[in-house]
Amino acid sequence: MEQLISDESFMREALKEAQKAFDADEVPVGAIVVCKNQIIARAHNLTERLNDVTAHAEMQAITAAANYLSGKYLNECTMYITLEPCVMCAGAIAWAQLGKLVYGAPDTKRGFNLLNEKRILHPKTEVSSGVLAVECGDLIKTFFQKKR
Amino acid sequence: MEQLISDESFMREALKEAQKAFDADEVPVGAIVVCKNQIIARAHNLTERLNDVTAHAEMQAITAAANYLSGKYLNECTMYITLEPCVMCAGAIAWAQLGKLVYGAPDTKRGFNLLNEKRILHPKTEVSSGVLAVECGDLIKTFFQKKR
Repeated sequence: MEQLISDESFMREALKEAQKAFDADEVPVGAIVVCKNQIIARAHNLTERLNDVTAHAEMQAITAAANYLSGKYLNECTMYITLEPCVMCAGAIAWAQLGKLVYGAPDTKRGFNLLNEKRILHPKTEVSSGVLAVECGDLIKTFFQKKR
Repeated sequence: MEQLISDESFMREALKEAQKAFDADEVPVGAIVVCKNQIIARAHNLTERLNDVTAHAEMQAITAAANYLSGKYLNECTMYITLEPCVMCAGAIAWAQLGKLVYGAPDTKRGFNLLNEKRILHPKTEVSSGVLAVECGDLIKTFFQKKR
């Protein structure tokens, strides 16, 4: 997949979304969807505000990107997420047949990789991790430290 | 969990939802959420109409039930689904901490049980399967036969 703009600069946009979640007292996770080097969707976690466990950043980003493209498959898109997706979001990413998934920090409690099941994602989805992992992870750590 | 009305009669309500999906040319899966023997949410698969892979019956039912209850946890609810949930929906059901899950037909291609990972669902979620399995499964078989 062609990638003129760096993964880091796109991840910084996802981090801006995560910061919006942080400022709204939501678990700070942000996601963006990129198609042909253009951002076509931005989202951050809204589970508290919407009172809805399904309102993760990734779920909203998938819905918004599909809406933008008028098509439900995202095989020509890259999604940047500040945190490793959970099982629900990985399942949604699989249905969307996402072209490439790039995430920042690992989620050692709820991340889909805990299942050790490569079958969750679509076989054609490329995966890259660790992009701005420290910044992405620090935002979450700070959030939970503040909560204690 | 108290259950005055039978699982079968609630599953018939979920089947009515699945039939609505069938009639709209959607993969026919229906779900209802029951709390204190009352149906508080009804939904059917809308992935085609909404152009959105996340619009499974279960996802919509979780959102609707949480909205009805003004709380995002469904630990006092039972969800009836005509088909075994996929990984995405099982992940959402886990986040919702659903009290009890009752499903009809098994999904041998996409069902969450294929992963052989009991960790997907919340440890407190009871699971019951096979309720009206033949009717639930036949509706899906008929749908895909019609498509060929």
